[in-house]
Amino acid sequence: MILIGERINGQFKDMREAIQTNNAEIIKKWAIKQAEAGADYLDVNTGTATATPKDTIAWMINTVLDTINIPIAIDSPKLEVVESGLKVCKERGAKVLINSTTGQREKLEKYFPLAKEYDASIICLTMDERGIPKDVNMRVEVAANIIATAMEYDIPIEKIFLDPIALPVKHAQQQIIHIFEAVKNFMLISSPAPHIVVGLSNVGQGTLEKELVNRTFLVMGMINGLDAAIVDVCDEELVNAVITTELILNKQIYSDSFLQAYKASKQHTKN
Amino acid sequence: MILIGERINGQFKDMREAIQTNNAEIIKKWAIKQAEAGADYLDVNTGTATATPKDTIAWMINTVLDTINIPIAIDSPKLEVVESGLKVCKERGAKVLINSTTGQREKLEKYFPLAKEYDASIICLTMDERGIPKDVNMRVEVAANIIATAMEYDIPIEKIFLDPIALPVKHAQQQIIHIFEAVKNFMLISSPAPHIVVGLSNVGQGTLEKELVNRTFLVMGMINGLDAAIVDVCDEELVNAVITTELILNKQIYSDSFLQAYKASKQHTKN
Repeated sequence: MILIGERINGQFKDMREAIQTNNAEIIKKWAIKQAEAGADYLDVNTGTATATPKDTIAWMINTVLDTINIPIAIDSPKLEVVESGLKVCKERGAKVLINSTTGQREKLEKYFPLAKEYDASIICLTMDERGIPKDVNMRVEVAANIIATAMEYDIPIEKIFLDPIALPVKHAQQQIIHIFEAVKNFMLISSPAPHIVVGLSNVGQGTLEKELVNRTFLVMGMINGLDAAIVDVCDEELVNAVITTELILNKQIYSDSFLQAYKASKQHTKN
Repeated sequence: MILIGERINGQFKDMREAIQTNNAEIIKKWAIKQAEAGADYLDVNTGTATATPKDTIAWMINTVLDTINIPIAIDSPKLEVVESGLKVCKERGAKVLINSTTGQREKLEKYFPLAKEYDASIICLTMDERGIPKDVNMRVEVAANIIATAMEYDIPIEKIFLDPIALPVKHAQQQIIHIFEAVKNFMLISSPAPHIVVGLSNVGQGTLEKELVNRTFLVMGMINGLDAAIVDVCDEELVNAVITTELILNKQIYSDSFLQAYKASKQHTKN
């Protein structure tokens, strides 16, 4: 399972302050904390905390990479901000994931050449100019189009992370079941299958049992083929549920200390 | 989800003592505790704590039904013990589940007429004279044979609880994935589908993270069609995971207090 730590994001209060006061320590703290908790990637997002996001994202990524060697997910809706982050990752030799494009042709035509140029993986939301799909078929249609376009641009399938767009159970309960169906279908679009990712915190948003809802959804997604998620990786119960699901799916070998063994296998080198 | 409380079983030390000293209070305590925790059935099993299991099971079931109105799962490998329990349940007007038969023709020929006579549901382990299946196909073959025989005996499908036989992840890790495949296939054997049940405590047996392994397995099973389990219903985290899975599967309607709402809906009348 590919766990993408969500915490270095200007939408969180302490991170917003860190960005506005150039406080590298907060960023370093969360980089280490998330890496130790088992993150495979760290998501980096300026949020709306800066008027100069291109510079800010570069500073944030450099700060993370000064602290620890870990893959970076560059999280921004702006192409120029993504490109600024990609440059830093390239200079620093860091593995990188673009978060994200949607499936519109004109967006893919901009993002795929960039992914190709920087050897980046890329999260592709399975929505297009028609908005967020209301059913399984449209999700699969958009996904198939994304994969076809990726092939056109010679992007290897293993670089593509399809995102079926998980909606909050509180507001879209009847649609959640479509997500699992979509995941199953995404698995059949190509061989090898693309990665499939969700932004997990969306699911439990607004509920009083956020962590419980999120981790239950994640286990249910994993058995259908979900293999990546943007998560609160410091939620230990969540990570334990992920490890145990992999154990039951026979993707981790059983030992009495299987939880510890998994976490140990994920450690990154500190700088 | 049909939760069958496992605790009134002579294999537990306090229950063994209760049986050997005719201490009804221990049985009553666990009857109430499990019912309050959300049990739909209470499993009743003398274990090896008695030389007169026919009388003991009758006494145990009467003790439970003196305490609370709740369906009973009669758990014994002996036909005459099961029959003794069935008589009590019939006298008391309690809904009843036989736990269990296997799929051998000669066993089904004994158990199905009994189930029919007492209007009982029945757990059918998908194994036969060849032993516990090592793959999905044999599980499905035995299951299909059980369903065909049930039809022959005019047992309604909704009375059949197929058990794919969940093995311990510690000792049979590579087989666990077969269980989920088997569950999916069982769902297709008939319309309506039969119930599908597991003895959950087997799965985590011997691991240091028993509760975590059991509840993760249960969530994974439920998304594939598992709709019943014999469980430690007093494990609140387990029950919360079950409720949340039903919520995400859109089988419970969302409210901010969905956990409480579910538990409230499961209460039984005390006597």
